Amino acid sequence: MKGGIDLGGTKVQAVVLDDRSKVVGQAKRSTPTEGGPTDVIAEMAGTIADACVDAGVDSSALTGLGVGSPGAVDGDSGIVTEARNLPGWDEPFPMAAALSELVHCPVRLGNDVQVAVDGEFVLGAGRGSRSLLAVWWGTGVGGGIILDGKPWIGRGAGGEIGHIVIKLGGARCPCGRRGCMEAYAGRAAMETKARKLVKQGKRTNLFRIMKNRERTRLTSGIWYRALDQKDAMAEKLIDRAIAALGAGVASVVNVLDVETVVIGGGLGTRLGEPYVRRIEKAMRPHLFVPERPPNVVPAALGDLSGAIGATLLVPPTLLQ
Amino acid sequence: MKGGIDLGGTKVQAVVLDDRSKVVGQAKRSTPTEGGPTDVIAEMAGTIADACVDAGVDSSALTGLGVGSPGAVDGDSGIVTEARNLPGWDEPFPMAAALSELVHCPVRLGNDVQVAVDGEFVLGAGRGSRSLLAVWWGTGVGGGIILDGKPWIGRGAGGEIGHIVIKLGGARCPCGRRGCMEAYAGRAAMETKARKLVKQGKRTNLFRIMKNRERTRLTSGIWYRALDQKDAMAEKLIDRAIAALGAGVASVVNVLDVETVVIGGGLGTRLGEPYVRRIEKAMRPHLFVPERPPNVVPAALGDLSGAIGATLLVPPTLLQ
Repeated sequence: MKGGIDLGGTKVQAVVLDDRSKVVGQAKRSTPTEGGPTDVIAEMAGTIADACVDAGVDSSALTGLGVGSPGAVDGDSGIVTEARNLPGWDEPFPMAAALSELVHCPVRLGNDVQVAVDGEFVLGAGRGSRSLLAVWWGTGVGGGIILDGKPWIGRGAGGEIGHIVIKLGGARCPCGRRGCMEAYAGRAAMETKARKLVKQGKRTNLFRIMKNRERTRLTSGIWYRALDQKDAMAEKLIDRAIAALGAGVASVVNVLDVETVVIGGGLGTRLGEPYVRRIEKAMRPHLFVPERPPNVVPAALGDLSGAIGATLLVPPTLLQ
Repeated sequence: MKGGIDLGGTKVQAVVLDDRSKVVGQAKRSTPTEGGPTDVIAEMAGTIADACVDAGVDSSALTGLGVGSPGAVDGDSGIVTEARNLPGWDEPFPMAAALSELVHCPVRLGNDVQVAVDGEFVLGAGRGSRSLLAVWWGTGVGGGIILDGKPWIGRGAGGEIGHIVIKLGGARCPCGRRGCMEAYAGRAAMETKARKLVKQGKRTNLFRIMKNRERTRLTSGIWYRALDQKDAMAEKLIDRAIAALGAGVASVVNVLDVETVVIGGGLGTRLGEPYVRRIEKAMRPHLFVPERPPNVVPAALGDLSGAIGATLLVPPTLLQ
């Protein structure tokens, strides 16, 4: 048995996998919004304990625990720095050591985006491919690359596909730059645009659904519901996002000529297959070799890409 | 001694390198515009013979000859297919075998763009880097990628950086698509735009210089001369090209986070260092990690990147 945790800014997702990499237990808790590293780590320990209960096994059955963490992650030292999404995480903190004391098994850390990419590559939609581009379509647009079976991150910051320029001089991106793919396709940018259109007097159900659900942000579920109701503004903004994703993802494919493109992330997973097909269609006019497109597929592990991918950090020698 | 040939649509460039990879001879001839494969190959043999004369060595001193060829190149069989830039090259033709008979040494083939990238990586501006993006700024905008010391071409068609979309719905590219980087930065697209502006009554010296030089196309030298004369249209179109290159190259850097960007090709080499600095500056606002930009440098081998790179195809076992 091994454990995996995907630590996000809003939730902690944990899984327990058996020795055949089958998910036998899972659990989810909210990420603490106050306190500091020890509070976050206590919640992580609690979540993996919940997942063990769900699996019907004792926590001592875990031979190792992998964690996908935000911030700057040093896998060797187990230290996490600059995790601005986490409360009070201003200084470098030894996450692996502190968590290991609570869970009584070795803990290995990886970058949250990269472990999710690895998860899809090894155990998800990328199985059988040698090269892959993962597109995490959510609040922002993140990504990851596998080339010839190995992750490519360049000098550490590779995979920032959300910030390729698809419209020179175009819309302002949450990152401050102009014309990035994320400026059109990221959920945060889409919400900003929707609020601006409402101020201009345009009508939409998006914010009514948000209020009914007692949310303060346009979540993926809210977009899904509005599209289901054929809300004109939601449709227009999603069309715009898909056009941007089509151009941006096709551009990366023209450069890297990967076998497989996996579409995941909050929005990607929630909207699912029909929208993945729409992205594939939007890519087509921009592909340099349109007669041999990559395989474009939804993330197979859905919300669990990160947590399942994190289990891959547990070294094979610890598996028996 | 080894030989290298860069076979282009307009010229055949040959070099002879000594065992320390120093260029000891070079020669250039025009690519035949009529006839067929055997005519082209005879001219290639003539050009490398000229380079041997230039080096002061007998042709028998060559232990091997590498060729960078356009078209679909099969390195193992030595066959070239679909070389539309070459006269009468409608059927697959065994270039390596036919050329080897004329030059009396083993001939190895590679893709013209990729051998030039390898040349810059191993013997030129990329020396000391582990990862590199080469940008060939010429009639079109081509490119090549080296990651962790090895070329990356994906399923065979990678490196098409000219056809990343930098302006969704933007200018028509010679490839037929819209908004590609090449639609703004490629010399062919720039000439089309200049001709359109002249038809609209705009003034420029570009075509006067072209006529004086008895050319039918706006060559890199003509652009250079017009810029030197501060021709307003030339400046405006080059500014536009540089803005496009800045956005496109920065986008690729955001995805791949390479150490080094090499700017070469006809225009890149002719305009040289000051324009490479301008491209670097145009990249800056689009870089996701602006505090750690890649090293942006002109191609060190200039016009000879391809021919010198082709010599790297000669296996080391043949070098003694």
